[in-house]
Amino acid sequence: MSSIGPEKHSPIAKTRETGGWIIVFTGNGKGKTTASLGMALRAVGHDFHILMIQFIKGARQYGELEAARRLHPYFKIVRKGRGLTNLRHREPTAEDIRIARDAWDFSKREIASGKFDMIILDEINYVIDFQLIPVEEVLQAIGNKPQMMHLVLTGRNAHPKIIEIADLVTEMKELKHPYTKGIKAQKGIEY
Amino acid sequence: MSSIGPEKHSPIAKTRETGGWIIVFTGNGKGKTTASLGMALRAVGHDFHILMIQFIKGARQYGELEAARRLHPYFKIVRKGRGLTNLRHREPTAEDIRIARDAWDFSKREIASGKFDMIILDEINYVIDFQLIPVEEVLQAIGNKPQMMHLVLTGRNAHPKIIEIADLVTEMKELKHPYTKGIKAQKGIEY
Repeated sequence: MSSIGPEKHSPIAKTRETGGWIIVFTGNGKGKTTASLGMALRAVGHDFHILMIQFIKGARQYGELEAARRLHPYFKIVRKGRGLTNLRHREPTAEDIRIARDAWDFSKREIASGKFDMIILDEINYVIDFQLIPVEEVLQAIGNKPQMMHLVLTGRNAHPKIIEIADLVTEMKELKHPYTKGIKAQKGIEY
Repeated sequence: MSSIGPEKHSPIAKTRETGGWIIVFTGNGKGKTTASLGMALRAVGHDFHILMIQFIKGARQYGELEAARRLHPYFKIVRKGRGLTNLRHREPTAEDIRIARDAWDFSKREIASGKFDMIILDEINYVIDFQLIPVEEVLQAIGNKPQMMHLVLTGRNAHPKIIEIADLVTEMKELKHPYTKGIKAQKGIEY
């Protein structure tokens, strides 16, 4: 097995035969963000450069942020969308739309930049589902992405048009969850 | 946020209120091993010590092995079960049983050792499903595990008795996979 180091040329060149994939993790079960973190970890092992943009996450993510720091400069997490929570229980406000728009504008620039081998748009499906970003804009950005870049979209209720253009779609179904037994979120497992 | 370093006492002490979880990733979709890798990554961010034991994996796992090396000494992957593949297409041999037994004996020792905050038994569901390890032995080891240790079991066709005692169970359902279009496995995504 040949040695691989940061000095080597980008792995993008080596995936030319197939092009980057569009990958979707959706469904109501646990493991969507977690699987995308695992995908990032595996890709780091190939010296890929990965960016995760978080569209709706809150304060409690110490585990993944600290872990990403340890994989610097290969894995970077950018938190956008602070405050975009509980959309299921209220009407979206102008501020929600502004936050989502800001996260999406940032994402579009990073996708087009060609700096990354993989970009993870964490919880973007949720934001599309609540119509804070038009699905057509996302489809357009996917269509124009650098050919070799992998794009991962997570979140419940993935839009049918996103599923249609994706290469790999997994639905995570919750069969059992301790929250239903009144247990608190677990450090190192869920955050 | 306080600094966390290897010199600090084990995070096991901090999860005492609930105890470690039994987590199952099953189903025919992509993302079971990947989600457990993501769980390991997140846990590394809390200075957990994690061991992944692979029950059926073959040669192609460069990404995750290299990534684990970069998270040394927190994350360790041990490959057992080399050769335990294609069980769906043939009768298990005495050699298969020996390989599975060796992997399982190793796992039992590591579970009982108390050295890890999380152990991932990757593809063990598959090995149980093919009756290379009796489910009763696995249930017994789970029942005797160190109280604060998290245990993650991955693989298709999780046994109903495993699901019954688990805290968190997610089924990964394949909605779409490029293999069905004749595309080869992708470096950095699937290995």
